[in-house]
Amino acid sequence: MINIPKGFKLAAANADFRGKKLARRDLCLALSDVPAVAAGVFTTNLFRAAPVLVSQKNLNGKNPVYGVLINSGQANACTGEQGMQNCLDSLAMVADALRSAGRDIAPDSLLPASTGVIGAHMNMKKWENAIPELTASIGKIDLEGFVRSMMTTDAFPKMAGTELELAGGRVRLAGVAKGAGMICPNMATMLALVMCDADVDQDAWRGMFRRAADETFNRVSVDGDTSTNDSLYGLANGASGVTVKKDEEPLLENALSEVLGQLAYMLVKDGEGATKVMHINVTGAKTDADAEKVARTVGHSQLVKTAMFGRDPNWGRIVAAAGRSGADFNPMDLVVTLCGVELFRKGRPTDQDFDALLEEPLSHTDLPLDISMGSGPGRAHLLASDLSHGYVTLNSDYRS
Amino acid sequence: MINIPKGFKLAAANADFRGKKLARRDLCLALSDVPAVAAGVFTTNLFRAAPVLVSQKNLNGKNPVYGVLINSGQANACTGEQGMQNCLDSLAMVADALRSAGRDIAPDSLLPASTGVIGAHMNMKKWENAIPELTASIGKIDLEGFVRSMMTTDAFPKMAGTELELAGGRVRLAGVAKGAGMICPNMATMLALVMCDADVDQDAWRGMFRRAADETFNRVSVDGDTSTNDSLYGLANGASGVTVKKDEEPLLENALSEVLGQLAYMLVKDGEGATKVMHINVTGAKTDADAEKVARTVGHSQLVKTAMFGRDPNWGRIVAAAGRSGADFNPMDLVVTLCGVELFRKGRPTDQDFDALLEEPLSHTDLPLDISMGSGPGRAHLLASDLSHGYVTLNSDYRS
Repeated sequence: MINIPKGFKLAAANADFRGKKLARRDLCLALSDVPAVAAGVFTTNLFRAAPVLVSQKNLNGKNPVYGVLINSGQANACTGEQGMQNCLDSLAMVADALRSAGRDIAPDSLLPASTGVIGAHMNMKKWENAIPELTASIGKIDLEGFVRSMMTTDAFPKMAGTELELAGGRVRLAGVAKGAGMICPNMATMLALVMCDADVDQDAWRGMFRRAADETFNRVSVDGDTSTNDSLYGLANGASGVTVKKDEEPLLENALSEVLGQLAYMLVKDGEGATKVMHINVTGAKTDADAEKVARTVGHSQLVKTAMFGRDPNWGRIVAAAGRSGADFNPMDLVVTLCGVELFRKGRPTDQDFDALLEEPLSHTDLPLDISMGSGPGRAHLLASDLSHGYVTLNSDYRS
Repeated sequence: MINIPKGFKLAAANADFRGKKLARRDLCLALSDVPAVAAGVFTTNLFRAAPVLVSQKNLNGKNPVYGVLINSGQANACTGEQGMQNCLDSLAMVADALRSAGRDIAPDSLLPASTGVIGAHMNMKKWENAIPELTASIGKIDLEGFVRSMMTTDAFPKMAGTELELAGGRVRLAGVAKGAGMICPNMATMLALVMCDADVDQDAWRGMFRRAADETFNRVSVDGDTSTNDSLYGLANGASGVTVKKDEEPLLENALSEVLGQLAYMLVKDGEGATKVMHINVTGAKTDADAEKVARTVGHSQLVKTAMFGRDPNWGRIVAAAGRSGADFNPMDLVVTLCGVELFRKGRPTDQDFDALLEEPLSHTDLPLDISMGSGPGRAHLLASDLSHGYVTLNSDYRS
């Protein structure tokens, strides 16, 4: 059971955006009692959805941030001018309803996020109908109820939290995420939100949020695709009354990395059709960039992914992926170790019965894959899913 | 029926390299009666198999090239010093046998190529046993018999040929290829050999071969992986007696591109588990490099590939892939046309019933996908397979 950080209230409603009359919520709002410092990391795709553009604008605006408004079922991406207007209208409608409920919050104090089908326009009548249910539920929705209302094809709700004892007292962090399709590196792993009740300097919070995202959400690979809507939000509202001192900022950054790291791991574990999580750890490269090339090429390789699905200790595919990665290294220096068993050294497979040694370890979900490229200082880490029949089924059948 | 160009003789034998006692040949030799000018294009992988290294050396050596020696079942990759020695020994054994048969050809006048399982050492006893059958068959094997002996998981034999009338008379080109797994851009698409009986200048032949390979074999994508053994050979022996004049070289280059293009198309069509061939044609980019980024990112996208397998006109995945490709363009300029139906323009899906318009066209094998990025001069072309259950089955089950 993860505690909601102080001063945050959650709300959710069923707007039937999917048009299937499911008994399932698809609209949610995380609202702070007081203004929060806010950070955002967004997709690098040239096609950014309307809510991404509006969130980026609001994060750089003059009004304080009070909350994040998320809908699933309609991505509001590739929807042009009308999509922008619909996004702004949805914020205005929610702000109106909040004002009626006694909370005077400007529309641009809310950060919008949408996930779902690309290209279709949002159904504003459904927004209008659902907003009373949304505002009436403020404070009555728990973390799992919140995350379930932002899920699309996720197999399980993704939540993580931690608490931290600082000089001034205890602060809490709670994070939620939705993932599944289009999970890839270079930011951009669907939607995630971290709430924190510490009182922290805005620049410090934004800096640590960006770094923590780089080390976690940008280090996963399911299918290498980046969506038009991927967004990661961090709100810190200070409601704990605990001010984070300068020398305590690294502690908060660690806690933030822990929460984001757990969410990123869950995203890979729930990659569409995934049955395995490869923990790719590359060391000994000349530079971090070389290590990253190898990690990403191995983690993205369809041949390596299918081998892991097939529980096949196919060192040849791993070695071939490293060799075509573009990284600068001496092939004779490469050492590949899968689940603790050294497979390859000095340009040759090691003389062992891989099938016997690895049959049991390869039946596990988590597979450590260590790749040493030499004796340099460069290193990189990546979490990667396998590639299964489930992936093909889910993605060849998406619209049906 | 493709004619074998003049002055070439084919041979093949069953060495049982797979150790399964199949009634199937796995060793073959293409031999020219006279010295040939030879060209080679090889994998860019840092881990190059012994036969790749030896072929590169022999192509740059002093002895004239007489033939290409190919075995399937054993890749002789990642086999270290012993692999090099085995490769050289196999050439020496074949040269010995040829000498006994009255052909005095030095071992380094032969170009070796191997395909099959990586890491295992070649079984030299099997080579020894099979070579008499190989040399006895010289001139008795036709083109299909030849290509069948180099196949691994290929579903069908890949052959292409053309003839060309020059001022001096008629010249012939015939090409064979094996593909299937690990087919990707950046050269390196398994094994292919083109034989030509024209008398052509060596530098001219090598130049046109490199360019034709760049425009064909380097423009395909099945799974983005590059193997340790990918090799493309071109031999021109002059046995037609027809000398290619300087101003006729473009004609020969066209013919060569035609043969290599047909083979490359067959490789994609027979990509492991492939059911579709996307003909991705990108135009209007600022530079060719920008166009290529879009073509490769779209062609490699697992989400686009699975959509094509599912016959799903999912323009959102195509647009999102273009947007994350790193190419420089204005998103409002992008126009996406699939099978002649315009799906996307000015940042929005076009207002059409895609499912009705595309249901029939998407049932075809060949799917033209035209992407216009603006009004620039940059363009790129790529052939890409889809991603099916068959791919996952073949590649998760490779070693069993």
